Amino acid sequence: MEPPPPSTDIPPPSPPEPAPRRRPGGRSARVRALVHRAVREQLVAEGYDGLTVDAVATRSGVHRTTVYRRWRDVGGLLADVLDAAADDGWAPPDTGSLEGDLAALNEEVAAGLTEDPPIAMALIAASFRSPEAAEALRRFWDDRYRRCAPVMERAAARGELPGAATDDRALLIAATAPVYHRLALLRAPADPALPATAARTAALAATAGAFTLPG
Amino acid sequence: MEPPPPSTDIPPPSPPEPAPRRRPGGRSARVRALVHRAVREQLVAEGYDGLTVDAVATRSGVHRTTVYRRWRDVGGLLADVLDAAADDGWAPPDTGSLEGDLAALNEEVAAGLTEDPPIAMALIAASFRSPEAAEALRRFWDDRYRRCAPVMERAAARGELPGAATDDRALLIAATAPVYHRLALLRAPADPALPATAARTAALAATAGAFTLPG
Repeated sequence: MEPPPPSTDIPPPSPPEPAPRRRPGGRSARVRALVHRAVREQLVAEGYDGLTVDAVATRSGVHRTTVYRRWRDVGGLLADVLDAAADDGWAPPDTGSLEGDLAALNEEVAAGLTEDPPIAMALIAASFRSPEAAEALRRFWDDRYRRCAPVMERAAARGELPGAATDDRALLIAATAPVYHRLALLRAPADPALPATAARTAALAATAGAFTLPG
Repeated sequence: MEPPPPSTDIPPPSPPEPAPRRRPGGRSARVRALVHRAVREQLVAEGYDGLTVDAVATRSGVHRTTVYRRWRDVGGLLADVLDAAADDGWAPPDTGSLEGDLAALNEEVAAGLTEDPPIAMALIAASFRSPEAAEALRRFWDDRYRRCAPVMERAAARGELPGAATDDRALLIAATAPVYHRLALLRAPADPALPATAARTAALAATAGAFTLPG
């Protein structure tokens, strides 16, 4: 006999939730915003080596006991900052063409990697030190890749992609990786033409079927 | 009146060089090899935080005064290890096609980034801490890009590239960046298909003229 299918319309037999302690916009959200800002500022000012729970507590004005209880350690702080960064209603650009959308996306990537203060670069650098930050950075990028699905849907509807299904993620990585490579790994000066040429390359390859899924 | 052209066939008015103190294969080369091995081992075992001149001296068995005099600090040690890595007679693969050459190159990149012990990843991580290591890593990659010129020359001779000159470096970055992105930044598990698909994408785009230099 099969187990009954899981029901989703019966509330779980747990006691009612206590009154929410973390209302959006409430004290808890304000504390979180203060702490996140302190993490970013501390990371840019002192690097990962200067990022300690105590330094974040001091800079944020939040009691250190609160910071320790809620974020535990530097990994917890970095992961929460990155998770919050994903919580922003971001949507991919809609320019009317696949190449245009990818170029606009690359302009955003390049702007992020060259912004001053260099928060994105500091978070990438921290991800080489903290496994929790690395994991959170991967979650952040995965979320961004998922939110880019409309770029490929619109391209398919316009006939810019072959009929078969496209590997969205492979296409997005091909389009954006040269910008990350140049700025985050080679640390070469920004090349104003690169966002557009990397987008053109990826769009060309996509139209030619380079990212068509097997099957 | 114009200044005279610089002459290159008159020796500079400097005293003759002293007898070389660093004969290849001599004591100096042996000391360098011992120190480099100790840097790599220490970096893999303890990370950048455990990489000190004293730890390298102890691990290598080379007197610490020698290590300080010759390499000065951690940045100097890392830069010399990276510069030595470029000094290896490496030549790009020659498989008979542009796509094949790029795929073989990507296999080497993927193997390097997933090797155990993870020396390449440890050096990349160190480049986020030490400006000298970052500069040396860029020199290393620049040297590799230059040595890859025959890949594009052979492709042009086979008619795989448009008649106009190709931006070799842009093509090489487009081909290899997805592999670096996945393994060094996303730190996702290796995808055995990625070296070939990234190579196919870049070769396709190159043949379509995506990397043709203006003019």
